Amino acid sequence: MKKKLNVGMIGYGFMARAHSNAYRKVNNFFDLQYQPVLKAVCARDEAKVKIFAETWGYESVETDWRKLVERKDLDVIDICVPNNLHRDIALAAARTGKMILCEKPLAMSSQEGAQMVTAIEQAGVANMVWYNYRRLPAVTLAKKLVEEGRLGRIFHYRAVFLQDWTISADLPQGGTALWRLDVAAAGSGVTGDLLAHCIDTAIWINGDISRVTAMTETFVKERKHNLTGKVEPVGIDDACAFLARFKNGSLGTFESTRYARGHKALYTFEINGEKASIQWDLHDLHRLAYFDHRDEGVLRGWRSIHVTDGEHPYMSQWWVPGLQIGYEHSFVHQVADFLDGLAKNRPASPTFRDAQETQKVCDAVLKSGSTGQWAEVV
Amino acid sequence: MKKKLNVGMIGYGFMARAHSNAYRKVNNFFDLQYQPVLKAVCARDEAKVKIFAETWGYESVETDWRKLVERKDLDVIDICVPNNLHRDIALAAARTGKMILCEKPLAMSSQEGAQMVTAIEQAGVANMVWYNYRRLPAVTLAKKLVEEGRLGRIFHYRAVFLQDWTISADLPQGGTALWRLDVAAAGSGVTGDLLAHCIDTAIWINGDISRVTAMTETFVKERKHNLTGKVEPVGIDDACAFLARFKNGSLGTFESTRYARGHKALYTFEINGEKASIQWDLHDLHRLAYFDHRDEGVLRGWRSIHVTDGEHPYMSQWWVPGLQIGYEHSFVHQVADFLDGLAKNRPASPTFRDAQETQKVCDAVLKSGSTGQWAEVV
Amino acid sequence: MKKKLNVGMIGYGFMARAHSNAYRKVNNFFDLQYQPVLKAVCARDEAKVKIFAETWGYESVETDWRKLVERKDLDVIDICVPNNLHRDIALAAARTGKMILCEKPLAMSSQEGAQMVTAIEQAGVANMVWYNYRRLPAVTLAKKLVEEGRLGRIFHYRAVFLQDWTISADLPQGGTALWRLDVAAAGSGVTGDLLAHCIDTAIWINGDISRVTAMTETFVKERKHNLTGKVEPVGIDDACAFLARFKNGSLGTFESTRYARGHKALYTFEINGEKASIQWDLHDLHRLAYFDHRDEGVLRGWRSIHVTDGEHPYMSQWWVPGLQIGYEHSFVHQVADFLDGLAKNRPASPTFRDAQETQKVCDAVLKSGSTGQWAEVV
Amino acid sequence: MKKKLNVGMIGYGFMARAHSNAYRKVNNFFDLQYQPVLKAVCARDEAKVKIFAETWGYESVETDWRKLVERKDLDVIDICVPNNLHRDIALAAARTGKMILCEKPLAMSSQEGAQMVTAIEQAGVANMVWYNYRRLPAVTLAKKLVEEGRLGRIFHYRAVFLQDWTISADLPQGGTALWRLDVAAAGSGVTGDLLAHCIDTAIWINGDISRVTAMTETFVKERKHNLTGKVEPVGIDDACAFLARFKNGSLGTFESTRYARGHKALYTFEINGEKASIQWDLHDLHRLAYFDHRDEGVLRGWRSIHVTDGEHPYMSQWWVPGLQIGYEHSFVHQVADFLDGLAKNRPASPTFRDAQETQKVCDAVLKSGSTGQWAEVV
Repeated sequence: MKKKLNVGMIGYGFMARAHSNAYRKVNNFFDLQYQPVLKAVCARDEAKVKIFAETWGYESVETDWRKLVERKDLDVIDICVPNNLHRDIALAAARTGKMILCEKPLAMSSQEGAQMVTAIEQAGVANMVWYNYRRLPAVTLAKKLVEEGRLGRIFHYRAVFLQDWTISADLPQGGTALWRLDVAAAGSGVTGDLLAHCIDTAIWINGDISRVTAMTETFVKERKHNLTGKVEPVGIDDACAFLARFKNGSLGTFESTRYARGHKALYTFEINGEKASIQWDLHDLHRLAYFDHRDEGVLRGWRSIHVTDGEHPYMSQWWVPGLQIGYEHSFVHQVADFLDGLAKNRPASPTFRDAQETQKVCDAVLKSGSTGQWAEVV
Repeated sequence: MKKKLNVGMIGYGFMARAHSNAYRKVNNFFDLQYQPVLKAVCARDEAKVKIFAETWGYESVETDWRKLVERKDLDVIDICVPNNLHRDIALAAARTGKMILCEKPLAMSSQEGAQMVTAIEQAGVANMVWYNYRRLPAVTLAKKLVEEGRLGRIFHYRAVFLQDWTISADLPQGGTALWRLDVAAAGSGVTGDLLAHCIDTAIWINGDISRVTAMTETFVKERKHNLTGKVEPVGIDDACAFLARFKNGSLGTFESTRYARGHKALYTFEINGEKASIQWDLHDLHRLAYFDHRDEGVLRGWRSIHVTDGEHPYMSQWWVPGLQIGYEHSFVHQVADFLDGLAKNRPASPTFRDAQETQKVCDAVLKSGSTGQWAEVV
Repeated sequence: MKKKLNVGMIGYGFMARAHSNAYRKVNNFFDLQYQPVLKAVCARDEAKVKIFAETWGYESVETDWRKLVERKDLDVIDICVPNNLHRDIALAAARTGKMILCEKPLAMSSQEGAQMVTAIEQAGVANMVWYNYRRLPAVTLAKKLVEEGRLGRIFHYRAVFLQDWTISADLPQGGTALWRLDVAAAGSGVTGDLLAHCIDTAIWINGDISRVTAMTETFVKERKHNLTGKVEPVGIDDACAFLARFKNGSLGTFESTRYARGHKALYTFEINGEKASIQWDLHDLHRLAYFDHRDEGVLRGWRSIHVTDGEHPYMSQWWVPGLQIGYEHSFVHQVADFLDGLAKNRPASPTFRDAQETQKVCDAVLKSGSTGQWAEVV
Repeated sequence: MKKKLNVGMIGYGFMARAHSNAYRKVNNFFDLQYQPVLKAVCARDEAKVKIFAETWGYESVETDWRKLVERKDLDVIDICVPNNLHRDIALAAARTGKMILCEKPLAMSSQEGAQMVTAIEQAGVANMVWYNYRRLPAVTLAKKLVEEGRLGRIFHYRAVFLQDWTISADLPQGGTALWRLDVAAAGSGVTGDLLAHCIDTAIWINGDISRVTAMTETFVKERKHNLTGKVEPVGIDDACAFLARFKNGSLGTFESTRYARGHKALYTFEINGEKASIQWDLHDLHRLAYFDHRDEGVLRGWRSIHVTDGEHPYMSQWWVPGLQIGYEHSFVHQVADFLDGLAKNRPASPTFRDAQETQKVCDAVLKSGSTGQWAEVV
């Protein structure tokens, strides 16, 4: 008999759907001691949250997150709201001793993040931040290959996250759908939204970053604001690129933009080691490219690994070799790992503390972007 | 309030999982009048079927499919068992007036298939065969482009379905896991298992096939049989290739094998028309390649369409542009279309009658493979 | 001091350019005992052949091939004219004891081919047919890998050669530029022009073909003829596909057409063996795809080998790793091999006799296409 | 009758071969008023330079470049020696009033470069620097598309040039073969060798760069020196990455290294504009990827243009559509453009003055790499 884990979800947007789907599916595919129960979902708009609850099978709704957080029948709070609410909710939830799963980025700044880390660690409860791309089988495989030393000494790490959805100057900012363009709600633009993913993966696979130099740009300087109805300055970074030094001596280059025509969610990374190299691309997330210099000379080439075999990470739980899974499965894996961690009393990564490392790099990047100087990650 | 549709599943294998997942998810993502209810699942091994029921949330189990078929609380029978049982179950279920969803291929032969078509049409109930690849968004898009006349007159259709999992001569045949290698259970080898998919798609997109000439081969002539424990002749076709004439005047080439090292489930098709061409590949199922001769000359090239935008078939129901779905979603779409068909009193394709067309081509292919003559599709 | 080899070229079209370029370059890149000298070029149109001679540095011109063939100052006759002239020129040149390099296909039919083989072998002189694709480094590498047994037992060979340049019904047939559409000049359509390349490579790498069944089609039934000025029936095959049995027990599928929109010269082949597989594509001729089942399971994938390293066939003579060569280099390699063969008194393949094997398969293909029966290769 | 242009080549290495091949071939494929004549080649090692002269058909040899430069029978001096000799040879040649073709990069520094520009412009003779990649048809096509405004406003430019040939610490530095690792001969490492190509293309297509911030690294700090026989510090940059601001407001990222395992000569660039984007890759130099947002929504995708059609730049002179050319052809095109420029009294780009722009960016990059500050391009 599985142990129930009562989930209280805050938010009903894109991420709340992705998480809800994961909670509902995880026990169909993974053999776990815990089973999430969709106990309650919370959002200010009562009509809409009720529809969401019905669609996904949540047992109850709330319209005030403070009430949800105080409920006695919940084990976990899942924070799926804009970044400017993460801290307050997390601090409140931590005070009640509930576990917390928080959408990324952890916070608006590393200062906020530090408060959250302190609170959750004082509460002593399980916690995790939804950097879901770690759990795509190809990315997990990349991590494993590096960890096993297959690449040897690492020389280079490069990542980009390219989108093209904000090129039109007519697109407004702010409000429910477009809070990511509103600096008051998002804290930053592509840095917190997209580069944070790249940084999280990079640290996970290649270790800490020590210093960075960055360049940021806001191509469209003013947009109509959905909340005020007025044309207002755009406070976010539309594009950001930075150079990095990793603690292991390797060099990093990172770039993100929402002005790269032709790319919807092109998150790619490449790692060059002494003996082997790896490439990955979110647009074909089920593949990993691998080059091994130890292969016989005449037959050396980049291998395109279709990461769908039973021996690939997570894949034994799904279909048969050759049949790919998709984006949403990364969330199922993350829930599975979290539940497995609970059973084994072992934190599932990234914890708040892990995610705070990414927060620090984001802060250094934004600082360098504004000062034009190299910035230390502190 | 949604109308409940009580499902009785027969089988607990790979396909039963894929269908169960689809029934569970479909209402989370599609707004439909009907909602499937996992009422009962049936298989001979009681212990195993109970575990399956628990994992997927089936309310009850049966161990005799005849009892399941007779139950009054079921609306739909879903047939997920080896091919040699399709007919008898379908005939029995049709007699009770239940709707039937049958795994592909429809039957062991077109003779059996004809009986099934007659029975289901006499019963006058909704029915469908699980040729799921039609419902991958890229394949549906291909169908749409051809239907709209974008390609102009069609000259060529070519398809392959390549696998590599039976190369070892040590692999046995028969029994639960390997019934596909046992001619008594499967009826044929790659023809019914893999080429049937290729033929279904081809007929759907390019119309009927009139005649074929085929070549079949069984590379490993004898394998240990799991049911008898003895080495026995292999009766299935390990590989099959055929040339085809379509009724619209275009030429077809088809090939399937389980001896193509390096391919797990490489189902690809290409269609060449007067004005444009299309390519698709199951290993990257979220992409469609498209070439349009009407593009400006200097800029002509094959386009790789990442079929994840909201305007692509089915995709508005899932995530955001750039984020791919996977294999399992084809089943969700098929259930959604079936439920939508029920609401609108419109058959969802392929019906038993549609699938019988594929059965006829398979029969002609096998006949030609054995006679060495061109065979008419009758 | 290099030995001079005086070349007499017949023709000034596309192929004559490719060969002339090869003769001029070969000693710049390959260290050989022989050096071709562009002694004479022959064509009926004196003005045009003079321009050709000047462009390429031929020392003299002729307007009657019979005179050229009789010249005493020539060592080699290179036949670059339409197929219907190959035999007569070759027989005449053989009578004078000259070496012969003949464009492919060898002849209009295997009957003609047999006469040519007899004549050249009685003359006892060096000879070669320009199936140039063998000499692309990636194709030569493929041959080598199969020869070394890397693939193990071969199960499948599949090849296509797809073009799209004759789709317009307004294109005329016949004359200098379009003799390939005129059955009187070409003998056949895609079979002799394109499939002949596929068959030559297949036999070279995978051994003889024993039987075939084919389907041919002429999509545009009548075209204006450039020589008569009238609309006349089209006698060539626009498209041809065939199934084949190789003597080694493997299965083959072959297809060629000039009606595959989007493809200019898409010659591809794939070979599936027990242990490994190979793919190649003329549109990226500098790459070879290779899959090796012996690779560690989790890292198995198709390798894209950039065939530009010094240890790859022919590549040590060119640039540095990563820098690709192109189409024309296949001819340089063929001349290099021919000259090297002269020095070592060793025939360079394919000889007339080798090319006659391809001729026989073409004949069987055309016969089967017309009778609808399997045809033996005899 | 063509006008002869007598060439005096200095050097017999890799580049001297590439240029010699271009001089020899250009009139076979391009209809030009001028014809290069291989008059003399110069190098210190008399035995070796004689072999080179014989292989390529140079009429005479010299062993002292000063003597060559003074010869009266030469029209053009081609400088194919290590970077540290460019200036002195160019200044001497300019004094004699000869045209100069100089290998890239122009000089050891922009200071040297400025002297060379002054000298050549005072001499008033035709001049060019061999940034050959501009002349690959796909790159020229990219330039054309941007120039025509197809991309609209440019937001991003990114380029990398990745190699992997110096990873072994056992590789020595200096001498004939390895002068690129010796700072005294090369001036810099990847910056002058590889990034210079990236910068040249970027400026050509996207306009001037105004400022940069860079990071450089030398992974192997000491290598045996071939000239001294001793282990000595390595003075070159093994890797260099920089961020850039273009004058047109777009952002640039550039990276180069010789430590990217798996890449031989992976020069790639991507340009993102408001309406369209472009990608190119030297490893498949005959293709250009193009995305046009103006395409119909459901059919939008990256097009892979096989740049081999007659209407593509330079391609009408070569073979037929679908048949690719290679690396060496870029030099043929560069010679063709130079000769055409002579006939039309129009400079062929990049001139010394054009190449000096790249030199300035290189200087700024190296300066920023050492100071850690943004550097202006002056």
